[in-house]
Amino acid sequence: MTALATDPAPASVAALRAALPGVVLDDSPTALAAHRTDRSAMPGDPNPLVVARPASTEQVSQLLAYANAHRIPVVPQGTRTGVAGAASAVDGAILLDLTAMDRIVGIDADDMIAVAQPGVIVSDLAAAAASRGLFYAPDPASAQISTLGGNVATNAGGMRCIKYGVTRESVRSLEVVLADGTILRTRPNTIKTVGGLDLTGLIVGSEGTLAVITEITVKLLPAPGPERGVLGLFPSVAQGLAATNRIASGSRTPARLEFMDGRCLEAIRKHIPDAPVPAEANAWALAVTDARDGAEEDLTSFEEIFTDAGATTVQRATSAEELEAILEARRQLQPSARGLLGGSVEGDIAVPRSALAAFSAGVAEVENAYDVTIALGGHVGDGNLHPIVAYTPAEGARARADEAVMTLSRLAQELGGTMSGEHGVGLEKLPALDTEMAPAALDLQRRIKALFDPNGILNPGKKY
Amino acid sequence: MTALATDPAPASVAALRAALPGVVLDDSPTALAAHRTDRSAMPGDPNPLVVARPASTEQVSQLLAYANAHRIPVVPQGTRTGVAGAASAVDGAILLDLTAMDRIVGIDADDMIAVAQPGVIVSDLAAAAASRGLFYAPDPASAQISTLGGNVATNAGGMRCIKYGVTRESVRSLEVVLADGTILRTRPNTIKTVGGLDLTGLIVGSEGTLAVITEITVKLLPAPGPERGVLGLFPSVAQGLAATNRIASGSRTPARLEFMDGRCLEAIRKHIPDAPVPAEANAWALAVTDARDGAEEDLTSFEEIFTDAGATTVQRATSAEELEAILEARRQLQPSARGLLGGSVEGDIAVPRSALAAFSAGVAEVENAYDVTIALGGHVGDGNLHPIVAYTPAEGARARADEAVMTLSRLAQELGGTMSGEHGVGLEKLPALDTEMAPAALDLQRRIKALFDPNGILNPGKKY
Repeated sequence: MTALATDPAPASVAALRAALPGVVLDDSPTALAAHRTDRSAMPGDPNPLVVARPASTEQVSQLLAYANAHRIPVVPQGTRTGVAGAASAVDGAILLDLTAMDRIVGIDADDMIAVAQPGVIVSDLAAAAASRGLFYAPDPASAQISTLGGNVATNAGGMRCIKYGVTRESVRSLEVVLADGTILRTRPNTIKTVGGLDLTGLIVGSEGTLAVITEITVKLLPAPGPERGVLGLFPSVAQGLAATNRIASGSRTPARLEFMDGRCLEAIRKHIPDAPVPAEANAWALAVTDARDGAEEDLTSFEEIFTDAGATTVQRATSAEELEAILEARRQLQPSARGLLGGSVEGDIAVPRSALAAFSAGVAEVENAYDVTIALGGHVGDGNLHPIVAYTPAEGARARADEAVMTLSRLAQELGGTMSGEHGVGLEKLPALDTEMAPAALDLQRRIKALFDPNGILNPGKKY
Repeated sequence: MTALATDPAPASVAALRAALPGVVLDDSPTALAAHRTDRSAMPGDPNPLVVARPASTEQVSQLLAYANAHRIPVVPQGTRTGVAGAASAVDGAILLDLTAMDRIVGIDADDMIAVAQPGVIVSDLAAAAASRGLFYAPDPASAQISTLGGNVATNAGGMRCIKYGVTRESVRSLEVVLADGTILRTRPNTIKTVGGLDLTGLIVGSEGTLAVITEITVKLLPAPGPERGVLGLFPSVAQGLAATNRIASGSRTPARLEFMDGRCLEAIRKHIPDAPVPAEANAWALAVTDARDGAEEDLTSFEEIFTDAGATTVQRATSAEELEAILEARRQLQPSARGLLGGSVEGDIAVPRSALAAFSAGVAEVENAYDVTIALGGHVGDGNLHPIVAYTPAEGARARADEAVMTLSRLAQELGGTMSGEHGVGLEKLPALDTEMAPAALDLQRRIKALFDPNGILNPGKKY
């Protein structure tokens, strides 16, 4: 080990340039400002050191070896579409922008895998798979703008998890760079292996705190059938949730199962006057099938369940355009919700599906306690809701809304659930960790972090 | 901490009895002999201390706390049906027999989960789920005799992985006891959570080296349709594998996709004269569907692919009895193989499916080099073969067979594969670790082991 490696000197961009001649380094105020945060409400620290854009795994390795020797924090970033602050800047950090590593390395139709760099946009990977008659299943709402590396680092969810699982379940293996610059492949690309511990699953969802992901092998599936859906409108939230629960636990698993309450519908209508959402309903549910066989039977079953549960309107969306318009309106819920009262904060709770009704019943009390308005929508097939807490411009209203989100998180935890179904911990959910898991579980996780990253350079201050 | 906890005294059964009055302890020669090994060729150490049969998580916790303080090794055991030596005895160890913790705690049809203790027999869990119209997907060949805890500890595979994944993919959460006696729940029972690192997936497949599993929550699926299959016989191994690969990468994913070569068929016929396997064929393939919709189309597609690939016989098995008889013959491959030449050793390689042909082509050379006969059969839908290396009673033949298995493992590794697709490392595969993974990956795993179990009491000498 050289003196350089053992005697950290103050970090400087000039020293970085000298040590890493091949890596694009940008410390312009514009670049630093642009990379300071993600789409969360976390502003990010004001003084990161530099934005680095490596072009290869080797460059990532050189950069981490240097950063580790000099104790320079490193924050991995993709397109920064996360909503929990996991990619937010840290003072003095190298913001490791992986978007230049954006190559789809290959698609193997025989082994049904795709190999891609972390900067690939998720919908581009899905399109490349589709062009070979195959299917990349994960479909987070951000698929058109988020990177595969970011999806893997946060174990992204989305609308299709009820049938296909979360991102972790599509990741076959990873090439990663450890904090000290070591390049590692987590496992062979076989379907099965029991040769070692599951390092792959451990790194998926670790939000850039254990290693930097430089190549991802994902499993692909046979292309499903075309998507068709049934929309149901209900007089009450309870009836809507009863209907979706019956579908979710029934014999015909849908590809998507979404829910919105009347306030969500109101917010979308206000934001997008011609959105295909109804004028009056207290609950909206959408069940979609993509079955190659039995799609007609699926739709009939969804219709029957909606009707039995008391739907006032049951309507099919069978053309791709019609269904896409409905899905797009659903995707516009978050941007729309901001306009409800002036501002909004979004939660991301998940509970066992059987506890969704109890959760929704607890919301009114939270509204009263914090003087906020809460709209409930989300991926109910997974028991995953994104409560939108809307607040007025009144003084102190924002702080009350943040407290309301925390209270909703605790309510979910009390119901056997979690404060984050898919968005991640990042910075935003750190205050909810202590009530989320036992001290021993949190301690183990922090020790695993320290084992992977003894100098604490990888995304410090996040996740734990 | 007491003096007892910090000053380890020599382990004695009397001291254990005094410290753990509630735990059944059995140090009779019969019990110790019966629990000395599993179904592997690993004999197990001759002098374990005692067999302990805890009745509750609390008893496991008390026992581990004591063992940890006194540095007594602990080997978790179920019904010891493993074939890699993971449950084999260690000198001086407490053999922790978990079969008395055999309660199905509950099945929740709304949340589609089952909660069970580790000693539950896998087929009992499956039957309990089926009685509620639900489905526990993993189906290792040992399902009738192996425990759920053992299946989880070894991440068991089996015939249904091509459609439903390995055991890890069915485990929702775990209650475990850490080496120091701490009781821990790995995650909430929600479908999604990104609140922490994936401790669940890390412990699944860790072969009792990280923690003792005391309760398992698994996900259940809607009941599938009845199983129906198509059997194909082929003039060559290459044609049989080409056929199964086309089915595996096609649009109609089977629920099982099995393969045996002519030597497998010969071994079964010799062992079970009336087994429903053909008299003459060089390759046998079975594709099974359990689709609720489109089963007929699946079968037609399998038939067409078999015929196109050059099958000499293509035959449907549509009654449950007929198919079960065929599956049972396939399950009898391992016991049958012992009779081929006198003795046999079984491998467990997995390669990317596209490399199966190259693997099978390399087998003849291994046969010549070690003077053994190799029969190839397995779960080819997962690229997972169990090469059976048969040897004569000649002197040195057994040692040559063991070397042949190692050579086959290396061949699989060179083809991008693994020395163990589903059996685990245990003791048997330890010699293949160095060629399986990079030093950094192995080092990380050993350090994770040390982090969970700093005194090295949990199943020492195994897995790493």
